[in-house]
Amino acid sequence: MTLELINTGSELMLGRVLNTHQQWLCRQLADLGYVVTRQVGVADTVDDIEQAVREALGRADFIITTGGLGPTSDDITRDRIAALLGRKLSEDPAIVAHVEGFFAQRKRAMPASTRVQAMVPEGALVLHNAHGTAPGLALHVIPNPFRADGKASWLVMLPGPPRELRPMFTNQVAPLLREGLPLEGDFVCRTLRTVGIGESFLEERIAGPLKPLTDAGLELGYCAHTGAVDVRFVARGCGADADVEEAARIVYELAGEHIFGEGDDELEQVLLGKLAERKQTLALAESCTGGFIANRLTNVPGASTVFLAGVVTYANSAKEHFLGVRAETLKAHGAVSEEVAREMADGARARTGADFALAVTGIAGPGGGTPEKSVGTVFIALASASGTKVINPVNRYDRETFKQVTSLQALELLRRAMA
Amino acid sequence: MTLELINTGSELMLGRVLNTHQQWLCRQLADLGYVVTRQVGVADTVDDIEQAVREALGRADFIITTGGLGPTSDDITRDRIAALLGRKLSEDPAIVAHVEGFFAQRKRAMPASTRVQAMVPEGALVLHNAHGTAPGLALHVIPNPFRADGKASWLVMLPGPPRELRPMFTNQVAPLLREGLPLEGDFVCRTLRTVGIGESFLEERIAGPLKPLTDAGLELGYCAHTGAVDVRFVARGCGADADVEEAARIVYELAGEHIFGEGDDELEQVLLGKLAERKQTLALAESCTGGFIANRLTNVPGASTVFLAGVVTYANSAKEHFLGVRAETLKAHGAVSEEVAREMADGARARTGADFALAVTGIAGPGGGTPEKSVGTVFIALASASGTKVINPVNRYDRETFKQVTSLQALELLRRAMA
Repeated sequence: MTLELINTGSELMLGRVLNTHQQWLCRQLADLGYVVTRQVGVADTVDDIEQAVREALGRADFIITTGGLGPTSDDITRDRIAALLGRKLSEDPAIVAHVEGFFAQRKRAMPASTRVQAMVPEGALVLHNAHGTAPGLALHVIPNPFRADGKASWLVMLPGPPRELRPMFTNQVAPLLREGLPLEGDFVCRTLRTVGIGESFLEERIAGPLKPLTDAGLELGYCAHTGAVDVRFVARGCGADADVEEAARIVYELAGEHIFGEGDDELEQVLLGKLAERKQTLALAESCTGGFIANRLTNVPGASTVFLAGVVTYANSAKEHFLGVRAETLKAHGAVSEEVAREMADGARARTGADFALAVTGIAGPGGGTPEKSVGTVFIALASASGTKVINPVNRYDRETFKQVTSLQALELLRRAMA
Repeated sequence: MTLELINTGSELMLGRVLNTHQQWLCRQLADLGYVVTRQVGVADTVDDIEQAVREALGRADFIITTGGLGPTSDDITRDRIAALLGRKLSEDPAIVAHVEGFFAQRKRAMPASTRVQAMVPEGALVLHNAHGTAPGLALHVIPNPFRADGKASWLVMLPGPPRELRPMFTNQVAPLLREGLPLEGDFVCRTLRTVGIGESFLEERIAGPLKPLTDAGLELGYCAHTGAVDVRFVARGCGADADVEEAARIVYELAGEHIFGEGDDELEQVLLGKLAERKQTLALAESCTGGFIANRLTNVPGASTVFLAGVVTYANSAKEHFLGVRAETLKAHGAVSEEVAREMADGARARTGADFALAVTGIAGPGGGTPEKSVGTVFIALASASGTKVINPVNRYDRETFKQVTSLQALELLRRAMA
């Protein structure tokens, strides 16, 4: 089975935006058992799009294009594909009504140009866009004049904005794919997510014990993200379920204390879920992470039931005013110190009445380092009913990676305290 | 001139990692005046790599591959390309010495497998790797048997790790490209960044007046990010400078109030710069944006001189405690109201002594909407010496987009107040 992905957009070829579609779609498809064999990025010009689509139709069973369905003059994917396949376009009144409603609901005038998004090629399935105006379109190209064997291809066009593309893929394209190109035999895929252990150390622990299974055909993959490592199993055919089950059992046994979740679980989501279950609450006091941890937590729907408040106290005066950190402590030990981290956490807990309070103070860099406290120095404190614990890692990275790594360490400190 | 990019790696096709090479290389090349015409991602299997390289050699003047030069069994790019072009590989003693030195310097044993990285195809230029072991390789394919016209192609292989690839590109590939494929005539590229106006409205305003220039060959591109739209001009040849200058003048005249910067400028960075220049300070009170604005601001190095403190007050009690919002106001109008937004901003300003305080309260969703206040309802307040202003947009999006759009509106409110 051959799947190809075509990402259109001059802004991609000019490097103005990052192609997140590739990773997201390839990941979704791989987890469904379909591996993308080729991904192509082209500018949104007539020739480039047409050539890429023509080539893909000559090879692939299922093709997904992204981008070029919007209202501006460089949105030409729909038109070019319709022309290439000789399908007439006509206006779909249901889409016009949807676009009108979209603007009305947002108290905005509807630009005349957006109406073009209601044009649908003959025979196309319309994929409803719940988060934007341009619908997706799916065409079953049968017979397929571009394939030597005339075999049919599916050609699915998705809109560029991720918030529109993603639910459209999950709710409408994935079912279409499963029905149109069913997998032969079982396919099982499972990902365990770990934190607090490096990739090679993890591999040392588990690769040997998993060898009988991998020798027998189980696929095992590691993927290191900043501060976290995923372990992914794939098995196909008869016994796939049992093999993956056994592999997961082994990893839980040998490295279970590092596993915070599976699949798409995020550490913050797992923690908020646990806190909610126990009816406990959390507060934050951030200095060097500058709101990053609060932002992560509040990306989780329903965070408000657990997360009471966060304070981002860059200035010393703010540490004193909002958290009750003592001026003497700041003077004696400096803002980046175990003592200040401790008083920040204690202050946040006392002033919000939360069960847990995490506090972070450190030097993100690039400036601000001293001979005694170098760039990357961090103190992370966790205050709870059982006292206040402080850890002191050194995270020497660029500013954004620093925030990412430090936030994971803080959340991991809380996870272990709750274990 | 035709440039193509080939990204190899099974982890790309499985969606385990994000292809940052594509954006980075395309951007570098575009800003040098070379536009990548096609980018292809394939797994690191013999057939996929060979087919992708063969096709690119059939079309392109300059081809860059990434990945597959390392020491493991799935690093096959060098071997496959040498085989495809019929070039013998031989060991380069200088590279062997470099690899040995690399390990010696780190007091680590040199794995025997790394020696394969010293194999160089006949006639290849070796690109020194200052940050790793695998060198890059550049081949001048002349004559080129894969091109109908026999025209020469450059084929450049770069290692996968970004910290190795990036300096290698900048210091060795860019000069090679400029020398091997010099641009004909001038090349000018300029990007204006706007906020607070939709792509279609912006196009309606400027496309007509720019038509004489675009008809004469000026390239005009729009790139919509969430809540912001970039306008990019490219001109080539004689008069390029004057054309881009004139185009920018027109856009500044017709939509100047929406332009917050150019090139790589970010709104938060522009604002912090302006505040620092005027020796003014800023505080934040965030409810529904949950620390997102604080996080954006603190991604900018040096933010601490301007940004005093931020409070993330999810709970009503936190709004009262940290900001002095009155219980009566919360009771009479609800947490999501103009009155509460106003008291949050006033409280944050009074308690931090900042010149400006931004406050945000709203319903991010998916839950929490009511018949009177639907999901997406937001109140954004800006308190300053000249009073407190509140705006009330409706941002009906998923949670993360909601934060992104709302934060831009808040920063834009501040930008306008400072204009």
